Amino acid sequence: MRINEWGENSFVHYLAEQFPCSGPFVGIGDDCAVIPADESHSWLVTTDALAEGIHFLLEQIPARDLGYKTVAVNVSDICAMGGIPQFAFLSIAMPRDLPCTWLCDFMQGVRDACDKWDLQLLGGDTLGSKRDLFINLTLIGHIKSTTIKYRHTAQTGDVICVTNNLGDSAGGFKAMSDHIPTSEDIDYLTCAHFRPEPALQQSLWLAAHTSVHAMMDISDGLNCDLMRILKSSRKGAVIETTQLPISVPLARVASLYDWNTLELALTGGEDYCLLLTVGAENFESIRNNFLNTFRSPLFAIGHVTSHHEELSYQNHGKPFTMPYTNFDHFLTSK
Amino acid sequence: MRINEWGENSFVHYLAEQFPCSGPFVGIGDDCAVIPADESHSWLVTTDALAEGIHFLLEQIPARDLGYKTVAVNVSDICAMGGIPQFAFLSIAMPRDLPCTWLCDFMQGVRDACDKWDLQLLGGDTLGSKRDLFINLTLIGHIKSTTIKYRHTAQTGDVICVTNNLGDSAGGFKAMSDHIPTSEDIDYLTCAHFRPEPALQQSLWLAAHTSVHAMMDISDGLNCDLMRILKSSRKGAVIETTQLPISVPLARVASLYDWNTLELALTGGEDYCLLLTVGAENFESIRNNFLNTFRSPLFAIGHVTSHHEELSYQNHGKPFTMPYTNFDHFLTSK
Repeated sequence: MRINEWGENSFVHYLAEQFPCSGPFVGIGDDCAVIPADESHSWLVTTDALAEGIHFLLEQIPARDLGYKTVAVNVSDICAMGGIPQFAFLSIAMPRDLPCTWLCDFMQGVRDACDKWDLQLLGGDTLGSKRDLFINLTLIGHIKSTTIKYRHTAQTGDVICVTNNLGDSAGGFKAMSDHIPTSEDIDYLTCAHFRPEPALQQSLWLAAHTSVHAMMDISDGLNCDLMRILKSSRKGAVIETTQLPISVPLARVASLYDWNTLELALTGGEDYCLLLTVGAENFESIRNNFLNTFRSPLFAIGHVTSHHEELSYQNHGKPFTMPYTNFDHFLTSK
Repeated sequence: MRINEWGENSFVHYLAEQFPCSGPFVGIGDDCAVIPADESHSWLVTTDALAEGIHFLLEQIPARDLGYKTVAVNVSDICAMGGIPQFAFLSIAMPRDLPCTWLCDFMQGVRDACDKWDLQLLGGDTLGSKRDLFINLTLIGHIKSTTIKYRHTAQTGDVICVTNNLGDSAGGFKAMSDHIPTSEDIDYLTCAHFRPEPALQQSLWLAAHTSVHAMMDISDGLNCDLMRILKSSRKGAVIETTQLPISVPLARVASLYDWNTLELALTGGEDYCLLLTVGAENFESIRNNFLNTFRSPLFAIGHVTSHHEELSYQNHGKPFTMPYTNFDHFLTSK
């Protein structure tokens, strides 16, 4: 069997079995590992890699945006559990004919992101690469241990929410790939793809609420990532597709070029907003306070059921079969 | 200018300037970053990446050895500062036609190393790669803050020591590249290349001695790595080439195939033993106690001088000009 037949989820499952976690630690299977620091605080550690030809094309993404995005996707993982990102470690394998100006622009993007989230780049590794560029970032954050949000804690009846529009980043990527001429709407989508904005303040606010039960970030698409919460929590879910938040620019571009916004929202990925489940009895108050605090809505898109790993969709309350395929890093290249 | 004209050392120097370290942290420029954990202890963090075609060839190194080595080279960085390695995070970017058996063997090697040094693999990232295999490992260790050994603390008059033979790993690599038929000696050298043995117990023992002033591990060759200590410490050194420890198997193979052991010892790299400087007044007692404790010698190879960044060699006390070129990850491929 080859890697592409095995698939990423199966491999991660295999790893979690091969390297079981002992002691007071959380290991493979959530957005971050959790290492207790003292009686009341923990360290969160996440690592994300980006490969040329899979996650990005050098001729498409400006170097500075790639540097920024490398940090942002890891910040998003720390936000996913409610923590504060703090220390970064960057490895970069570079083909030897890479221009130094490219590298300096890339590092400027890393610095933009470090400045934005008050991170310190404390180390890393630089090496040559035969052909493709490869980047890895490890990010360490801290958190009050009682406020850590996991994937395995969704409860039957919880309201499922997202904190931002879905599909914008995938739309930006599609616009680029299809060579669609630039416009204000297209720029908005491309920016969502190049410069994701993990919501650190929203994440800290949500983590402080005990009625927020499960939380993660959306990196591989709502369909794929929600299934991860459901598997971990041994629950099911019903999603109402008409409730999925689609931005006005995406809706406009989609109507112009006959794109399927639902497919982009469910499987596009790289949204880097939060996906969470909230106890139904507290949902109204949390939604109102969230809106008052951030002037941006918490979008309710469905609810958690007791049907183990059963993720179903509705359209205006009627059953809807999801016909799209998830993105798999082992199968697909960008 | 291209990356290969810039060179790895210049880029790391540029990074250290661009990302200065603030607060009580140690950042870019030593074997590990140092993050204070409480009043008396610190975390050490290191990250090392390996690229196919640069650090290894898939057809040369068995998957299990590569997995083991990926962990070992990072363990060596934690040892370099005197710490105890504890938590590992592995990223691996794989071409999609990689056989699953290869991956399982690789992970078995990772597990061999985790078992050997009592590490927990707590997370990572798995992704596709267009062509080449890339591996990144981040390792977190802990240490009593007062025993941390740095590169910048060598003192004039210190005795320069190494804890093991030099050039064996480079000899193993050369034997493979030159397709030299296998023998007991060749197997010994290949094993040194594939299965490095960072000396954790020796490192902890040395770290506990205040007269051990500066310490690091040898990964890029004695010449290159000693210069790093000298630059950080603003010192010079004189090395007596006849004192460099060469193993009996390497000497025998070298004589048979007309290899230059001095070149291998000075520039071969991947020795993963310790390079340290010891206060001259305590050296005899430390050398004797080291020998009694580990039944293996601490090799004195030269001394630290006050001549800033002046690294000179002697042969039987006579000046000797080092004619060999260092390995640079940006320039050379294996």
